Amino acid sequence: MKNLVGAALLGQSGGPTSVINASAAGVFIEALKQPNITEVYGAVHGIKGILHEDFIDIKQESLEELELLKNTPSSSIGSVRYKLKDPKKDSSEYQKLLDVFKKYNIRYFFYNGGNDSMDTCNKISKFFKKSGYDCNVMGVPKTIDNDLNATDHSPGYASAAKYVATTFMELFHDATVYDTPQVTVVEVMGRNAGWLTAAAALAQYKGQGPDLIYLPEVAFDIDAFFAQVNQVLLEKGKVIVAVSEGVKTKDGKYIPELFQDLKKDAFGHAQLGGTAQVLAQEIGKRTNVKVRAIEFSLLQRSAAHLASKVDVEEAYNAGKKAVQAAVRGTTDKMVGFKRISSNPYKIKYVLLPLKLAANTEQKVPLEWILPEGKGLTQEFIDYALPLIQGDSKAKLVDGLPRFAKLKKVRVPKK
Amino acid sequence: MKNLVGAALLGQSGGPTSVINASAAGVFIEALKQPNITEVYGAVHGIKGILHEDFIDIKQESLEELELLKNTPSSSIGSVRYKLKDPKKDSSEYQKLLDVFKKYNIRYFFYNGGNDSMDTCNKISKFFKKSGYDCNVMGVPKTIDNDLNATDHSPGYASAAKYVATTFMELFHDATVYDTPQVTVVEVMGRNAGWLTAAAALAQYKGQGPDLIYLPEVAFDIDAFFAQVNQVLLEKGKVIVAVSEGVKTKDGKYIPELFQDLKKDAFGHAQLGGTAQVLAQEIGKRTNVKVRAIEFSLLQRSAAHLASKVDVEEAYNAGKKAVQAAVRGTTDKMVGFKRISSNPYKIKYVLLPLKLAANTEQKVPLEWILPEGKGLTQEFIDYALPLIQGDSKAKLVDGLPRFAKLKKVRVPKK
Repeated sequence: MKNLVGAALLGQSGGPTSVINASAAGVFIEALKQPNITEVYGAVHGIKGILHEDFIDIKQESLEELELLKNTPSSSIGSVRYKLKDPKKDSSEYQKLLDVFKKYNIRYFFYNGGNDSMDTCNKISKFFKKSGYDCNVMGVPKTIDNDLNATDHSPGYASAAKYVATTFMELFHDATVYDTPQVTVVEVMGRNAGWLTAAAALAQYKGQGPDLIYLPEVAFDIDAFFAQVNQVLLEKGKVIVAVSEGVKTKDGKYIPELFQDLKKDAFGHAQLGGTAQVLAQEIGKRTNVKVRAIEFSLLQRSAAHLASKVDVEEAYNAGKKAVQAAVRGTTDKMVGFKRISSNPYKIKYVLLPLKLAANTEQKVPLEWILPEGKGLTQEFIDYALPLIQGDSKAKLVDGLPRFAKLKKVRVPKK
Repeated sequence: MKNLVGAALLGQSGGPTSVINASAAGVFIEALKQPNITEVYGAVHGIKGILHEDFIDIKQESLEELELLKNTPSSSIGSVRYKLKDPKKDSSEYQKLLDVFKKYNIRYFFYNGGNDSMDTCNKISKFFKKSGYDCNVMGVPKTIDNDLNATDHSPGYASAAKYVATTFMELFHDATVYDTPQVTVVEVMGRNAGWLTAAAALAQYKGQGPDLIYLPEVAFDIDAFFAQVNQVLLEKGKVIVAVSEGVKTKDGKYIPELFQDLKKDAFGHAQLGGTAQVLAQEIGKRTNVKVRAIEFSLLQRSAAHLASKVDVEEAYNAGKKAVQAAVRGTTDKMVGFKRISSNPYKIKYVLLPLKLAANTEQKVPLEWILPEGKGLTQEFIDYALPLIQGDSKAKLVDGLPRFAKLKKVRVPKK
């Protein structure tokens, strides 16, 4: 462990969340306090910002605005979906990163993202070590998908889950308002892990949720699905379905894929969407009742006005503790949460090897998923309910949220 | 003016809002206090509930649950989209309503809805008068569309507007997070009046709103639209568009209508939806940049967690004042709002002839709409901003809203 003196740099990566800026606030505010940290920088659009030496000078920001970041959704300094090449095949980008780090004497690097980003973080850390450059590299978790391994949960999930649960409760009241038959199919984000769609079970737990819930952890049987919808329609006259964008048939086909070609994103993941729409259309054809498809789309990951207080605090602390650990000499680790108890809810912040979180996906345990789309077991409720407690939102000015406005003064290029 | 003694009945009609139940709370709680009102009933699914003598006995509910209605979204007693026949052609349904009113000695009738409902209310009132049956009939306004005539605004609009403005601010942060070009097209409800889409201008006013706003008041020029999107794309690399579901070409064609057949609802209105999707697809084809279509769908009218305090209070008072006026002998009137001043915001509750509100639509003044999709004038901001002030939401239990749970004990059929 060396007592490094130099600049600290934060990058944000991947899809934003309601609380990714809360982690940024934690990193920035704590880094500004540390005597060994000489400068505090934010990389504009993550790795891309580093490659282009595009940095925001955080010392130019007021503490008041940095505090407001806690309740400002999305990524204030810009995020990125950019996958570095495999360093074994082409290390030129890693070399470029190293050159930039040396030039700006960056000795503390914080990367806030999901499992792809933890992988990036891990590779950078290894490359720097191999190159003999001392830099403490810390991952700060972030994902609405909650699919990061080794940690009990990840910042961003709880607020998105609170949005999903609250919105399903509200939709329950709206979608049952007429005495005519109706099927409402709601699509929730989650590529391979169904944690966020599972949050609809919290609304069920309150007796005001969807009738049927489908997660990507279980192969989607389209015939069984239509039978299950029909069954509820016969019993209740109304059906509300929660379906993950990522559900696949046992042959590995996404629902929209059965109907259209899919584009792929920079990481090679299929770009989804349209699952609810396709299913609603098919139900309409088969039952001749009124159908409605709803996609929570970007709303579920940016609804800072409905953030969980637990989430905002944990996201902030994850950033803060990453800085404290790095300054103590920790590197190649991600801040994670270990649950001590659910009732009362208590967690411990832990430092996990980056490689544990990188690229592996934590899914909803199959034994928590009820058969036939019936929802989740009490184990899931006990897991998720403590996470969505409390409100934390921006103060209102003119009845609208006062989000942080950073000056974003650029660091002069060297 | 007669001193009528008998039962009071409330019906809810049309698409629900975040605060339609606040008006119900106002009617119920005030009616329970009135010595001349012997029973308080809620009609299950509006007019249909009356025709089927399906009434909830509100005296069986606790005052505490009735108070919780203020922050419970949608229609607690069930709404309906049912158009009575023209009484000049077929008065059988009116006769049936009259028979039911007589049988249950209903002397006070409150109907909470939009302009179709005010028309229904007006026709019922006239038929009763012609038949010599004394019943004070009062309309209570409700619409997220804000298209009811003669009143400054209608309960339901402000909360939906607050949702639209807040959500556009959040989307602004999310949709600008990457450094890659992107066009996001967001569809807002509003069949013929653009008030709700115009609320996106409140986010613009905060510098965090859409770049382009299209209301149904102005003929939609699809070529000009693509040129305007392109212009912003060139200037900023990102475009956020707010478009009303109801925009039409100068030939009167809805956007999805250019691509598919439209179904009609019970009132003969075209069922819309898909405007954003169609536009986003076309932009994608023409520009080859990433596009995303978002529909606020039912969320914008049921998001009670984001209700405006001003709206909740006015909705409650509209219900309460309808009862007070009816008991004083008023009939055939709708409670409306007259604005005294915008800064400070001050309104007066007024009683308007039902026929003034019935079936005519109040639209956004053309002089408030900027050309080329650029948004709204300061006049609109001054009009709308006072309406979205303050928060009013259900208390949280387990981190989720505690909505009203009515017992819904049915009145025995006579």
